[in-house]
Amino acid sequence: MIKVAVDAMGGDNAPSEIVAGAVAAVNKEKTVHVLLVGRRENVERELAKHTYPKDQIQVVHASEVIETEEPPVNAIRKKKDSSIVVGMNLVKSGEADAFVSAGSSGAILVGGQVIVGRLKGVERPPLAPLIPTEKGVSLLIDCGANVDARPSHLVQFARMGSIYMEHVVGIRNPRVAIVNIGAEEEKGNALVKETFPLLKECRDINFVGSIEAREIPHGGADVIVCEAFVGNVILKLYEGVGATLIGMVKQGMMASLRSKIGALLVKPALKQTLKSFDASQYGGAPLLGLKGLVVKTHGNSKSTEVCNSILQCVTFREQKINEKVQESLANATNRSN
Amino acid sequence: MIKVAVDAMGGDNAPSEIVAGAVAAVNKEKTVHVLLVGRRENVERELAKHTYPKDQIQVVHASEVIETEEPPVNAIRKKKDSSIVVGMNLVKSGEADAFVSAGSSGAILVGGQVIVGRLKGVERPPLAPLIPTEKGVSLLIDCGANVDARPSHLVQFARMGSIYMEHVVGIRNPRVAIVNIGAEEEKGNALVKETFPLLKECRDINFVGSIEAREIPHGGADVIVCEAFVGNVILKLYEGVGATLIGMVKQGMMASLRSKIGALLVKPALKQTLKSFDASQYGGAPLLGLKGLVVKTHGNSKSTEVCNSILQCVTFREQKINEKVQESLANATNRSN
Repeated sequence: MIKVAVDAMGGDNAPSEIVAGAVAAVNKEKTVHVLLVGRRENVERELAKHTYPKDQIQVVHASEVIETEEPPVNAIRKKKDSSIVVGMNLVKSGEADAFVSAGSSGAILVGGQVIVGRLKGVERPPLAPLIPTEKGVSLLIDCGANVDARPSHLVQFARMGSIYMEHVVGIRNPRVAIVNIGAEEEKGNALVKETFPLLKECRDINFVGSIEAREIPHGGADVIVCEAFVGNVILKLYEGVGATLIGMVKQGMMASLRSKIGALLVKPALKQTLKSFDASQYGGAPLLGLKGLVVKTHGNSKSTEVCNSILQCVTFREQKINEKVQESLANATNRSN
Repeated sequence: MIKVAVDAMGGDNAPSEIVAGAVAAVNKEKTVHVLLVGRRENVERELAKHTYPKDQIQVVHASEVIETEEPPVNAIRKKKDSSIVVGMNLVKSGEADAFVSAGSSGAILVGGQVIVGRLKGVERPPLAPLIPTEKGVSLLIDCGANVDARPSHLVQFARMGSIYMEHVVGIRNPRVAIVNIGAEEEKGNALVKETFPLLKECRDINFVGSIEAREIPHGGADVIVCEAFVGNVILKLYEGVGATLIGMVKQGMMASLRSKIGALLVKPALKQTLKSFDASQYGGAPLLGLKGLVVKTHGNSKSTEVCNSILQCVTFREQKINEKVQESLANATNRSN
């Protein structure tokens, strides 16, 4: 039985979509037990609307909620009875294997490090969302709070990302690349130039060299390594350009009567195609390298993404990702000693 | 009379589209004189296909061509008779006011600094392309070779970018923002945290604070300040996500007979809308802060972009941008002393 704590109060659609996602997950998967963390009364009212195996969902009361605009460090320290702090403490104590939240990114990143804690040997835990590409998805690692990273951090990100893509997403021998401003080895800033030769030496990953940002949406690599500032820019620009273009296409279709008729005919096929450019079917972004697992889902997650994030935790646990990460990092340390 | 040297041999469509662009420019603008730099025989053969005022175009022979894959520093040093080196020397000697090239980015960046040289007081010359947004265009500064920039460089980029947007593109009191991973002042990496208060102190620019990458395509600021690594990632991801999405939309429209008919009806309106998401109508990317002007146009530029790049040089000269840049930087230095 895999136990997943879920932040019932986090995100724009809490608690209704979160509870619906938890119900969908237990209805799909017999081996999962969900601990819904939040205000008991609100959560139970939502639960009453659904049918599900009662022994697979349990409510854990938490009286407070951390809002997205609160300074994270302060929020984690002060709101001891918030759904995020209570949920992460369940992972820390071993009462849950993983924690899923659509709440404050900052609080989740801080709480992951401070409450759940890093695995032995992990220098920094990266946040690693899946981003859509023409060919499927790629793992963008790191988009978290680790700005001004060092080369050794990026090497660990490459190893952890590679294990995740292979065993959770199911990509055999995933291609690992580092984000760069040219394809040649001599290109890049100081961080990339120092990291590149270290990645080349890693015999346990399939390092394919540099990747220019232009190639990311084409699916040029499976694991895209970068430091968090660049990762954050990539993730948010992806969303921004996507939203703008789709908006403009829609607007263009509404321009004349002729195009409006065309839009009606085109709509179903287009919807299907663009659906494949949506990574939420794979679940949320894991914060890797922790003693347990913390998954951050989009703030506007609907039940499907919540459900997929819970199932992703099951795969993560079943595939013993943390054990594999620790083994990989320990082997790397031994080789370099 | 404003004299613009144009690299007739640079880019995928040289010399035909380059020559056609030069012809279009002189037919549009009486005050411009174009010096077409390249293999005389090839250039004259192209010119013979067009009608134009003969006294406004002159061919300057250059026997060599720098290929895009050549290491830039070496190419600039060795190929003294290449179109890029000859063209830049025309600017250096004052025989031309500006140089436009669709050739090797690396060689243009190196040549601009080494041959044309920096304006007094400019620490690093930034490459500043215009990128399309929902509302028009924004200037992304820097996308050049200045990786690992210092805060003082970014402050100069903000000033130069602001002058360019106001006087060349015609945006009054342009909003200047720094690329960041959150809207709050305390967010960011070391470079951004150091630069932010310096920009706040600049009373000669309209600094509006941080911009998250998501807001860039929505037109959240007119001048987007960042160091070159991040700028390069933004520029190339813009192109990549755009190309991928447009490709998927087209593919989706070809999915069924129904959608194919719809596509025919939608096409003209859609084309018109997406055209507004194309910055090439504004010309190429200026390399700012040089004694003269160097403009890099896309490698796949057609005649329209070449023509617009030449006209952009006219505005640049007429508006005395370099004089304004020097005055602005000198004033800033005086204030801080």
